[in-house]
Parts: sequence; C-alpha cells; structure tokens
Amino acid sequence: MTQQIPQRARRSEGDDTRETILVAARHEFSASGYAKTTMRAIARTAGVDPALVHYYFGSKEKLFATAVDLPAVPGEVLRQVLDGDPEQTGARILRTALTVWDTEAAGGGGRLTALLRSLADDHGPATMLREYLTNQVFARITTHLGSDQPQLRAALCFSQAVGLILTRFVVRAEPIASADREFLVQCYAPTLQRYLTGPLPAAR
Amino acid sequence: MTQQIPQRARRSEGDDTRETILVAARHEFSASGYAKTTMRAIARTAGVDPALVHYYFGSKEKLFATAVDLPAVPGEVLRQVLDGDPEQTGARILRTALTVWDTEAAGGGGRLTALLRSLADDHGPATMLREYLTNQVFARITTHLGSDQPQLRAALCFSQAVGLILTRFVVRAEPIASADREFLVQCYAPTLQRYLTGPLPAAR
Repeated sequence: MTQQIPQRARRSEGDDTRETILVAARHEFSASGYAKTTMRAIARTAGVDPALVHYYFGSKEKLFATAVDLPAVPGEVLRQVLDGDPEQTGARILRTALTVWDTEAAGGGGRLTALLRSLADDHGPATMLREYLTNQVFARITTHLGSDQPQLRAALCFSQAVGLILTRFVVRAEPIASADREFLVQCYAPTLQRYLTGPLPAAR
Repeated sequence: MTQQIPQRARRSEGDDTRETILVAARHEFSASGYAKTTMRAIARTAGVDPALVHYYFGSKEKLFATAVDLPAVPGEVLRQVLDGDPEQTGARILRTALTVWDTEAAGGGGRLTALLRSLADDHGPATMLREYLTNQVFARITTHLGSDQPQLRAALCFSQAVGLILTRFVVRAEPIASADREFLVQCYAPTLQRYLTGPLPAAR
C-alpha cells in the first residue's frame, strides 16, 4: 500500500510554471524596463504559451508587482489618488501609500526593507523599480494633472516618498517612525503638492 | 647587504594603532550612539592612551566622520549653513551638501552608495549614522534657528535629504541625476525651508 502524500507538501506542476514565469519576468523587466516588456516576450523567455501568463497573473502590472514583490498593485490603488480635488492629490497619495506601507510594516516589514535595499543597489532591480515608480506611477499622476515638466515632478515626488519610507520604516527615526498616519499626511502633503502642481524653476 | 623595503609598502605601527582605534570607535558609536560615546571609552576599548586617540583624530566628530567614512566632517561645513539669512537656510544646506556629494560622486561615488546601503540596513551602522545626522547635524540647525518641534523638523529634513541623495546618486533618476546643482537647490529649498521654519501640524 503506497503512502498518501499530503496535498500541501506536493509541489504541483502549476507552481513550477508560475515560478518559471516569474523568473522570466524579472529577467525581461530588468533587461528592457517596464514599458518595453510585453507579456508575449515573458512567455517566450519562460517557454510557455502567452495564455498561461495571462491565466496566472492577469495583467502585466500584476505580474510586475508579484515579480518585484510590491505590497500592492499601484494601478489598483491609483484611482483613489486621481479622483477628487487636484489640489489635494498630494494628501491622497500619502494617505493611500501610508495605508499600504503601514499594513505591510504591521506584517513584519521585511518586504519594505528588501525593496529599499534593492533601490540602494545600483543594479537591474533598482533600475526596474525606479523606472516603474517614476514613469508608471508618478508620471500617470502628473499626466492626469496636466502639469508641465511631468518627468521632473515625478522624480521629485519619488525622492520624497522614498525618503519618507526609509525614515519611517527602515531607519525608524523618531518622531516620524511612531507618528500617526494623518499627522504625516499633514507634514508631507504640501511638499508633494508643490512637486505635483506648484511653481518649479524652469528646466535647464 | 639587506634589501631596502620601500617606505610606502611598509605598514607602520602607527597604521595599526589608527586602525585599532577606528574599529573600537565603530563598536562604541554603534553600541552607545554618537552623543554618549566618549573619546576615553573608545581609547579604553582600543587599549590605547586617550592622548593617542586625540593625536590621530583630533576630535570626536572627526573620528566619527572617519569611522563611518563620511565625505566631509559636517561640523566643519555647518558654519556656512548657519551664517546668514535664516529664511535661506534650506538653500544653504542644499548648496553645501550638494557640493560635498557632487565632489564625492565625481570621485566614483562608491562611498555614497555604501553609506546609503548601510542606511537601508536596519542594524548598528544605520542607527549610528541616522542618530548622528538627525540629532547632531540637523538638530544643531533647528536649535540655531530656534524652531519649535526641533526633532520633528530634523527628521523631516533628513527624510528629504536622504531621498534626494538616493535619487540623484544611487538610483540616478532623470532629470535629477543630471540636473545642475543650483537648479536642484531651487527645487528643494522651499521644502527644507518649510521643514526648518514653516508651520507644521501640532505634535500629537
């Protein structure tokens, strides 16, 4: 009589395929950047049918978020940021992002530290993540707002957002580490709002 | 006839003593923080006379800067930041710091990346450096300005400064990576100035 292998201990073919696709995705996003990478190219590198990539991950953005281990799919929370008074966009970005990060930190925060560490690394993963955050996330916001110099504004927002995450969650400098979320929103909203819609020096 | 060993290839006893002091200093600063560490305690850990520590490094701050491999001794450039119109302090911090960092980056920038990487690490060196930058550097500025909530203001400044260094020198996001220094001063000065002297939400 053969012994029964418990369901959870068995590694299914599906798990392997999923992992193969993730490895291929990291490679493609690293090599070509987010914008130029296609689901088809990832499928080709993984040696699977493109339909399977869609089946497992749904969209390029969801696949990216899983591949780089983001705590949320930015496209899915972006609607909450874009809707409403344009002059409150900075506050909405902070409220949304801090909610995601605080939840992540409450679960241990290992993913946040790993993300930050990969940003401080000047290799493939950093470039891929930075390009995604500035060109996809913040640039969608600046484009939506119709601001001039959208790339500069996106990079300025990125620089304050990444500094805030580092200070609150990794370095844990007080009083920012223990401050309540809404207090931080009030501290940082004027900064992000100026970066998004305020007057900036002319590009040189 | 014995062969002459070239001067530079010989490792002197002085080099060894200096290195022993640096190792002891890193240990003490890590364990006790900058403020509570004394030259005497470092000498004790290194097993040398306190006079030798002074002889090799001159001051606690110079020893700290050498131990954590800072590109400049902040106390030495702080005078340029404190002197002058208080409402231009943000611009002076940026001009001074960017000059130091740009010079460092022109020399390869390895030290900057290493510093940032150690900040993203949530261990001893990160704590030591963060405590020094917020409590010694930025807090001296907020105290000089007589602002309320000096610790919060120092932490806010730290969060934007570290995000800017990460964006310009490590992640190298454009247009910030290639922007000229004075352009960045104009972009970021209002942010630092509000953090230093502007209205902030009341502490909770």
